[in-house]
Amino acid sequence: MTEPSQKNSYDLIIIGGGPAGLTAGIYTARGKLSSLLIERGLMGGLITETESVENFPGFPQGVSGLELGELMHQQAQKYGLPILVAEVTRLKLKGEQKIVETTEGSYRARALIIASGSERIKLNIPSEEKFGGRGVSYCATCDGALFQDVPVAVAGGGDVGLTEAFHLAKFARKVTVIELMPRLGASRILQDRAAAEPKIEFLLNTRIEAIEGEGMVQRLRLLQVKTGQKSTLETSALFVAIGIKPNTSFLKNILPLDASGAIVTNNRLETSIPGIFAAGDVRANSARQAVVAAGDGATAAIYAEKFLTE
Amino acid sequence: MTEPSQKNSYDLIIIGGGPAGLTAGIYTARGKLSSLLIERGLMGGLITETESVENFPGFPQGVSGLELGELMHQQAQKYGLPILVAEVTRLKLKGEQKIVETTEGSYRARALIIASGSERIKLNIPSEEKFGGRGVSYCATCDGALFQDVPVAVAGGGDVGLTEAFHLAKFARKVTVIELMPRLGASRILQDRAAAEPKIEFLLNTRIEAIEGEGMVQRLRLLQVKTGQKSTLETSALFVAIGIKPNTSFLKNILPLDASGAIVTNNRLETSIPGIFAAGDVRANSARQAVVAAGDGATAAIYAEKFLTE
Repeated sequence: MTEPSQKNSYDLIIIGGGPAGLTAGIYTARGKLSSLLIERGLMGGLITETESVENFPGFPQGVSGLELGELMHQQAQKYGLPILVAEVTRLKLKGEQKIVETTEGSYRARALIIASGSERIKLNIPSEEKFGGRGVSYCATCDGALFQDVPVAVAGGGDVGLTEAFHLAKFARKVTVIELMPRLGASRILQDRAAAEPKIEFLLNTRIEAIEGEGMVQRLRLLQVKTGQKSTLETSALFVAIGIKPNTSFLKNILPLDASGAIVTNNRLETSIPGIFAAGDVRANSARQAVVAAGDGATAAIYAEKFLTE
Repeated sequence: MTEPSQKNSYDLIIIGGGPAGLTAGIYTARGKLSSLLIERGLMGGLITETESVENFPGFPQGVSGLELGELMHQQAQKYGLPILVAEVTRLKLKGEQKIVETTEGSYRARALIIASGSERIKLNIPSEEKFGGRGVSYCATCDGALFQDVPVAVAGGGDVGLTEAFHLAKFARKVTVIELMPRLGASRILQDRAAAEPKIEFLLNTRIEAIEGEGMVQRLRLLQVKTGQKSTLETSALFVAIGIKPNTSFLKNILPLDASGAIVTNNRLETSIPGIFAAGDVRANSARQAVVAAGDGATAAIYAEKFLTE
């Protein structure tokens, strides 16, 4: 690699342009800190995939994820935050300097806020994408309330899947948890509670082969993998809960990660390396909500400014 | 005390109605959790005293603190969050139950989110109380407009003190910022902005020894702590902005607190007692921003729901 030139030098670099990164940027730009935000795709991050965000405080009528992302983007631009569209390929340390290698050149800074988010692990079946926001969801907390008194399904019988199922059971008429393996992966206590909840049913050894419907999700095509029997499940929604993958591949063992690949921080959002902070869905124990990510962004920006000042 | 009756029983109680408590309430009420929010005064908390909040993400044009608090309040009400106006006097534990004693009776829950915020610290000098509402104030937004074309003073040269000074400079003839330490604690951008504002002056190394006047504040007795020199400052008002104190007195040693009296949590906002969470300005290491508090509220609500499920 070539060294970053002087003009590629900042006090602080923010990796990621979702609610965490944009809020960090609103704070650093408004605070006249020399900072750069790097985002590889659409500003706003995963929130842009949510049709109606009902639980971001300050929006009692709800707001579309796309609009919320754009409002945050405007706010960061208002204070003059420089934004680079590029993919971060690698992070390197050189003394106190953090070198961020991207598809558009190398950048350096003394402080770094990693807000690169997570990806949802998808089923990767036909029409999963087509029904996104039309009955296919990856977050019961976000979208469960939209499905009152109708049958819904959950893909995944681990802790997350069952937690989603409990939440959905408050609204839905019936919740079918679909698990590919012969048994649920969830903890015993969650399984016991699920067994005691009359609204929750299970289909084990079952693969979802297709999602169908006119405009909105109406049914799933299922395959019983042991017997080879095919069936149809009528459902108004499919909540996919088979896991998430924090976007940390560019770190290459630089920072301690938890079992899921998320960055470990304290509650000042400091990582084990001075000057490197993690904010939003990419940090361990994040509740994976837009407002939590936004709060993280502000926290990281404030402690990063403190780090740079001291 | 008498035991809380059955109707005073909830799954979850939220103490405090600022951004942290209201956001927690938006999540718990929308998630159909049996929950109660207890607030002793104005919904919205300290944020309501801020005239224009410029860094709450999603509001590129800024929003008044009063309006932001009201929007969150509306959002919580929309989902049917029960709200009790009462002061929490004491917290007691009884097995897994948390008993919340208030001026309006006792309430119990298995989970608790403490979002009771912080209070502003007073100077604690003679006549500070006597001149309350007669020239001594803790809120420039509330009282600044009362002091047109007269000299005013601010105690405290941190971010809050300088922010108060900018607001006061819109009305007053002169604003003297009095700081006990040899330098201002405010961020560089605020210091630069203050230096560029001809109405704002600074007195460093200076202690306020007494407030004097006939009925209303007329002058301050000052001591230069390095030289020992005494002086008098003619002023019509004193705005005290020297810090904040977490509202944790009702806890009576139940939870570990940090040196400032804030509640110690991990980054899931769990305290040392299972089922008790702390969110917002009342928790240790909070960056004391509305969006951070709001994010905390969501985090605490999600982990509290998980706690109640498991």
